[in-house]
Amino acid sequence: MTLAHPQFDSDGALRHFLDLDGVSRETLTTILDTAEGFAPIGERKVRTVPLLRGRTVANLFFENSTRTRTAFELAAKRLSADVLNIDLVSSSTAKGESLLDTLRVLESLQCDMFIVRHSQSGAARFIAQHIAPGIAVVNGGDGQHAHPTQGLLDMFTIRRHKGDFSQLTVVLIGDIRHSRVARSDLAALKILGAGEVRVVGPRTLVPADAEALGARFVPRLDDALQGADVIMGLRLQRERMNGAKVPSSAEFFRHFGLSAERLSLAKPDAIVMHPGPTNRGVEIAGDVADGKQSVILEQVTAGLAVRMAVMSMVLGSHTSNRVESHQAPGVGP
Amino acid sequence: MTLAHPQFDSDGALRHFLDLDGVSRETLTTILDTAEGFAPIGERKVRTVPLLRGRTVANLFFENSTRTRTAFELAAKRLSADVLNIDLVSSSTAKGESLLDTLRVLESLQCDMFIVRHSQSGAARFIAQHIAPGIAVVNGGDGQHAHPTQGLLDMFTIRRHKGDFSQLTVVLIGDIRHSRVARSDLAALKILGAGEVRVVGPRTLVPADAEALGARFVPRLDDALQGADVIMGLRLQRERMNGAKVPSSAEFFRHFGLSAERLSLAKPDAIVMHPGPTNRGVEIAGDVADGKQSVILEQVTAGLAVRMAVMSMVLGSHTSNRVESHQAPGVGP
Amino acid sequence: MTLAHPQFDSDGALRHFLDLDGVSRETLTTILDTAEGFAPIGERKVRTVPLLRGRTVANLFFENSTRTRTAFELAAKRLSADVLNIDLVSSSTAKGESLLDTLRVLESLQCDMFIVRHSQSGAARFIAQHIAPGIAVVNGGDGQHAHPTQGLLDMFTIRRHKGDFSQLTVVLIGDIRHSRVARSDLAALKILGAGEVRVVGPRTLVPADAEALGARFVPRLDDALQGADVIMGLRLQRERMNGAKVPSSAEFFRHFGLSAERLSLAKPDAIVMHPGPTNRGVEIAGDVADGKQSVILEQVTAGLAVRMAVMSMVLGSHTSNRVESHQAPGVGP
Repeated sequence: MTLAHPQFDSDGALRHFLDLDGVSRETLTTILDTAEGFAPIGERKVRTVPLLRGRTVANLFFENSTRTRTAFELAAKRLSADVLNIDLVSSSTAKGESLLDTLRVLESLQCDMFIVRHSQSGAARFIAQHIAPGIAVVNGGDGQHAHPTQGLLDMFTIRRHKGDFSQLTVVLIGDIRHSRVARSDLAALKILGAGEVRVVGPRTLVPADAEALGARFVPRLDDALQGADVIMGLRLQRERMNGAKVPSSAEFFRHFGLSAERLSLAKPDAIVMHPGPTNRGVEIAGDVADGKQSVILEQVTAGLAVRMAVMSMVLGSHTSNRVESHQAPGVGP
Repeated sequence: MTLAHPQFDSDGALRHFLDLDGVSRETLTTILDTAEGFAPIGERKVRTVPLLRGRTVANLFFENSTRTRTAFELAAKRLSADVLNIDLVSSSTAKGESLLDTLRVLESLQCDMFIVRHSQSGAARFIAQHIAPGIAVVNGGDGQHAHPTQGLLDMFTIRRHKGDFSQLTVVLIGDIRHSRVARSDLAALKILGAGEVRVVGPRTLVPADAEALGARFVPRLDDALQGADVIMGLRLQRERMNGAKVPSSAEFFRHFGLSAERLSLAKPDAIVMHPGPTNRGVEIAGDVADGKQSVILEQVTAGLAVRMAVMSMVLGSHTSNRVESHQAPGVGP
Repeated sequence: MTLAHPQFDSDGALRHFLDLDGVSRETLTTILDTAEGFAPIGERKVRTVPLLRGRTVANLFFENSTRTRTAFELAAKRLSADVLNIDLVSSSTAKGESLLDTLRVLESLQCDMFIVRHSQSGAARFIAQHIAPGIAVVNGGDGQHAHPTQGLLDMFTIRRHKGDFSQLTVVLIGDIRHSRVARSDLAALKILGAGEVRVVGPRTLVPADAEALGARFVPRLDDALQGADVIMGLRLQRERMNGAKVPSSAEFFRHFGLSAERLSLAKPDAIVMHPGPTNRGVEIAGDVADGKQSVILEQVTAGLAVRMAVMSMVLGSHTSNRVESHQAPGVGP
């Protein structure tokens, strides 16, 4: 038995944004185009638009992440939404049993959107399936499952530099298996029809189903980098480094670290990406992270435009509210 | 020697909202009516009104409460106030001696309103008595004394379902003695002239002066529920469950838990209330909490409208600002 | 080798506000004058002006300070800026090595201003030297180096009460050596040409270079207070009290505590200042802190106007926006 994916309404429009399953190339392209429309706002002196004025976005963070929470908060504020940070990390509601109760209370507070960050895979989807109809859920990262806005911002960054995906060779390096970022990137690259996607890393950290994800496993980094257009590093979690799966961070770097020397094996105009925070000397050499080919900081900036796009689209208000906001500013009761 | 209640000015208007002592039926009804006026705002797409634009509401939480803080923050933001969360839990200012010093500093920051949550009974009143004249204090729960906005939102919910209070039989179940919610509910029910109010629970958890509070003690829950229109559960604090006063949570439920079977003893259209969070299987059966007669989530929503009403009334700006808001509406970029 | 001070642009205008080094009397006076222009806003019913609407101010607190953070947040909100609180205390980014990485990410979020609080002297300057050109840095206190907005608010308060600095005798009492407040006060008093500045305290807590800072060391408090116009207490840190440098807080008070009796040695219209929070019975007697000559709470209020002035000036929007604010006010007192 398969349930319909809760992120689409009956017309196929996005009502939540949980992962990239079932997202069409057309929808994904529309999100990226919308984000392109928002990007110049970040360059202006006044960086807000009144699209979501009077609407409330609540950050439900069951897991700490200053960086992601900050990016969502900024994106929401640029849309003039009211933002509410609800710290659920230390709360008892992190436990599965009472999550539904917590949700019911939160939806009774009449918020418009929940940004959900949770350590368990599937949490955002579970919440979307059980939330009242009027409330949109955006996945801010759930366990090892998905981090779809990170996937989007990576595609946004690639598209800006490379344009057409069909001709690209993209290499993902490192801990593919446990990375929600890698999962969302692979899904997005598949949807957008990337020419060739290679994954490289210790066998223990590469999923057995790489091919189903549209990627080809390449054991050696030097081979993987040949002719690459886009090189994506992934953060190696500290708990993996200390575990049995990876001998040591020095050894990891020796085999899979992106040094300047290795980078020269890729195309001269290859771009270097990383979701951050980087472990310098583990996944990537410092001079590469700071080098000319690095677009790591552009990714951060792209995250704002992409999240503005997702938020405005799932609230279904992209077109209609813009008009409304000019007609009915700050209405009285 | 009795001091005048600091929550009224010389004309009898509310300048603070600390508890229900001395609040007239007329005033209480005005608050509920004002809240009715605000309630539809929560159903709109744009959920803000500019009543408190440019004014500052500071949450002074000396005790943690994500739920109450969130509700006040949302209510203030709907009124377009600036909201400041000042975490005093971990601060040294929780100590009595320096509270006055802390207050002086906070009032020097020229905020308009303090929402005070404190573990000591009387804290909000103490603060109101010592604060500078221009600053309003709203009690967000003080020790075992009062939680007046919870009392109001309960009355709001009852009135919406039942209208006239004089014909109602209301039952409060559980730990009446230690509950600031019960104390505020009993006070409000008395002011509004509820027909009959019954309290039921372990003798150790029912105050000796129930009659002075306008309620009749009924030892057995089955008897108490006969003919009831409104059934209010109360949260049993975990520290009581583990203490000597209540044998165990299973035994509590056997004697005082609201099961579907017991609920059938009340009137068929009785409503079931609880301030949340519920302990399912202790105070209330899960199917009753989620059942058709439950209005538990409506209470949460009512809390927003009621708090908007209280905030706008104590700031004395309810009428005057409303006009102003149509003249000078939230300029765009 | 001396680098140019990063807080000035090539025209000598303030682009950051890090300390008082190199600030001219003219610039300092302009800040105080601008703050005077903002002060009346705090007395109005609507306390916001749209000067920084659409701009983002991020509080980067690597060290906890509820009081300073709150003051900056309030000042920014009065200017209609969006405020983002980024808690870096518990974050791994407090470590020197990755601070630059953190900065790069933060600047990629396209904020306009960072308020930096850090336990290490020089942190704000380091950040200003390495931040992208478009972002202003304001020092909210760095180690034992500087707390320049505190210095400004002290000058603002003195000027309101005393006018001309050249005729004033100012006394700083206590732990001068470890106090960033003292350092900023001494610098500001020198710039403004204070008549005579005396420092008094245990020899271990007075810097050897007092004269270079424009002050004269006076060993006994009674002598120091003779003819004083302004008396500034400083907070004695608890870690000093327990250390070997100061025998005990009772003994400190006996030698250097400001009692009512001692205060009478100063001029009758002398004002008593303290950056707060005060240790009553250590640096200052309770009746003096609360007495008629105390302006301690005025200092808190002055901090809002002064921070509004600094924020608006370093964002370079001081002149242009001020005009705008009179044309398009979402505002009216």
